[in-house]
Amino acid sequence: MTDFTRTKTLFDIPEGMIYLDGNSLGPLPKTAAARVAQTLQDEWGAQLIGGWTAAGWMEQPTRLGDRMGRLIGAEPGTTTIGDTLSIKVFQALSAALQLRPDRREILSCTGNFPTDLYMAQSLIDAMGKGHSLKIVPPEEIAGHITDATAALLLTEVDYRTSRRHDMAALTRKAHAHGALAIWDLAHSAGAIPVDMTGTGADICIGCTYKYLNAGPGAPAFISVARRHLDKVEPILAGWLGHAAPFAFEPDYRPGPGIERFRVGTPPVLQMAALDAALDIWDDIDLGALQTRSAALCDLFITEVETRCPDLTLASPRSATERGSHISFRHRDGYAIMQALIADKVIGDFREPDILRFGITPLFIDEEDIKIAAERLESIMKSGLYQQDDYKIRKAVT
Amino acid sequence: MTDFTRTKTLFDIPEGMIYLDGNSLGPLPKTAAARVAQTLQDEWGAQLIGGWTAAGWMEQPTRLGDRMGRLIGAEPGTTTIGDTLSIKVFQALSAALQLRPDRREILSCTGNFPTDLYMAQSLIDAMGKGHSLKIVPPEEIAGHITDATAALLLTEVDYRTSRRHDMAALTRKAHAHGALAIWDLAHSAGAIPVDMTGTGADICIGCTYKYLNAGPGAPAFISVARRHLDKVEPILAGWLGHAAPFAFEPDYRPGPGIERFRVGTPPVLQMAALDAALDIWDDIDLGALQTRSAALCDLFITEVETRCPDLTLASPRSATERGSHISFRHRDGYAIMQALIADKVIGDFREPDILRFGITPLFIDEEDIKIAAERLESIMKSGLYQQDDYKIRKAVT
Repeated sequence: MTDFTRTKTLFDIPEGMIYLDGNSLGPLPKTAAARVAQTLQDEWGAQLIGGWTAAGWMEQPTRLGDRMGRLIGAEPGTTTIGDTLSIKVFQALSAALQLRPDRREILSCTGNFPTDLYMAQSLIDAMGKGHSLKIVPPEEIAGHITDATAALLLTEVDYRTSRRHDMAALTRKAHAHGALAIWDLAHSAGAIPVDMTGTGADICIGCTYKYLNAGPGAPAFISVARRHLDKVEPILAGWLGHAAPFAFEPDYRPGPGIERFRVGTPPVLQMAALDAALDIWDDIDLGALQTRSAALCDLFITEVETRCPDLTLASPRSATERGSHISFRHRDGYAIMQALIADKVIGDFREPDILRFGITPLFIDEEDIKIAAERLESIMKSGLYQQDDYKIRKAVT
Repeated sequence: MTDFTRTKTLFDIPEGMIYLDGNSLGPLPKTAAARVAQTLQDEWGAQLIGGWTAAGWMEQPTRLGDRMGRLIGAEPGTTTIGDTLSIKVFQALSAALQLRPDRREILSCTGNFPTDLYMAQSLIDAMGKGHSLKIVPPEEIAGHITDATAALLLTEVDYRTSRRHDMAALTRKAHAHGALAIWDLAHSAGAIPVDMTGTGADICIGCTYKYLNAGPGAPAFISVARRHLDKVEPILAGWLGHAAPFAFEPDYRPGPGIERFRVGTPPVLQMAALDAALDIWDDIDLGALQTRSAALCDLFITEVETRCPDLTLASPRSATERGSHISFRHRDGYAIMQALIADKVIGDFREPDILRFGITPLFIDEEDIKIAAERLESIMKSGLYQQDDYKIRKAVT
């Protein structure tokens, strides 16, 4: 039984702040600062170059990959950590296109996170082989999967609305047509249970700084189904993906299995923070997490709809059709969110009119939900958000 | 006047250790631990998502890029920090090939670091446009630059022997033939003065964990000459290189200037360590550094050649022809280095027979050089290195 009262004590959250943005950047796990300090002082400081072997830095990507893989139902030995999610999109799509050399169509949807689409298009342009990126509305994806489809490139949970694709069904349909399915789990990993192996997904990618709480700029992950692992030549043939990195051979030989998806030197300090963040997940039952997330999301929807009739729910009403954040629309969404943030309820705004709230059971409870809704109500009723201060757009992340 | 007695006090180096491996991983700057802790507690912990604007995380790549750029003579606004050097090689070469669309030959040398060659070959393979990577001995590069050359892809200082290319002359010759020059400064930045602008180099790349002491897995840099900046479509079109990352537009529009060479979310903790490491460089006169490096290297060569006649100098004897590390050859090089490391003189070994010693004036002085040479002499004379323990090869970094 996962004790969410206990998990809440494991994070540093400023007094009085209700942090509903763990879907964008998770809070600081209390152990992370000590872990990173240890890596700095006891490893880098004391062991210097020896840290690569003595402190296990070189194995971090694979060791942490397996810890990560467990949270998305990936088989051991099929996940590695490194780089950024953008880079992992590039690697994943290149791999899929190699596995379907006779097909030219990549299928994605308008709900995908833009960087996935950008990276896909830049790969297509660089390859110059006539691939096309077909982008359709999310609900039309299934109807567009054909025998011409090389790969689906989809983000399971929409970063704006929280709408969730049916990963199992779409993967099944892709496979029925001989296509592959790449799933971006940026808004899924640590938010909802994911079963990479059970759904048959071919490649999963994601980041670790959102629900997993590994810190700003934490590295990304890529999991490649074992059946594909040795059939792909990595497009980013970095030395640490080489079969023998320290032989310094003139030609690239891909490392075994998932190792070939490593590229350059791993970011050791960020890895230490990730390691500490993953400790918390060892004790989390993902089914219990989902149940609790659904209940808290439902409560938030009810509270906000009751108190703030001017806000329109942008997320699916059914928990089975969404991730773990809830969005509302309002034409003054930006100003409302700024006013709310000034009142210490932290959500975020996404163009054009989305107020977004991450509901993260590890550190958010019913009381937080109620207070957040109350403060939102107060802002809406007072019209406070209409002050000029709140309307001036700043770069928001 | 740079005071190298003072700079030595700025690093944490274990008592009794003589660290001649700053060319592989620099030591911990004393301020780095506090800086990273501050980023964890006062920024991530206290500001959470707000850190992206309030703590300036979003601007780190460009702000630190300019600090880095100064050390290699790049113009302000032409350098950005992020990813790994392998990724930067990929970006740099793609950019160069776009600028020379009618040419198909990339020229490199056998002294280049393998990952540069691997990444170049994988880019060529992915593009499938008939580019070729011509790899010749380093001393033959000039003779192979022709009107067919699209770009030179060279590492200025050889990671094994410390042999240095004539960056200015080769760049000049490349330009005379209409080719571009990409310089990997991994073993140059912080080791010797570099004048990107003065030499006319087109693109410079490098890492920050060696002579710059930014820590294990510290991010890389890329500097692109201003004349090229707006003519290149980035091959890794990540969202943070977009002209308006937070507009979440469906199509990629490259950001202004060097911004388009950003890819994904910057590694904020590693950036904090880099920031602290760069503070030290603010006070360093690179000319004085070079003079001192040359003197210490000369001393090391003299000491080792006098004391250890069985070791053969692998580096150029003339300071103007090398970087800031010195290498010797011996067929039992691996075992000798293990014995030396056991005696707290830290260098490293590179296949097949290279003993490599970083001579880093920021924290190495004459006394260190003499002690290191004495211990090496003792190991050579006693034959201690012939113990089985030292001969067993482990993965060395």
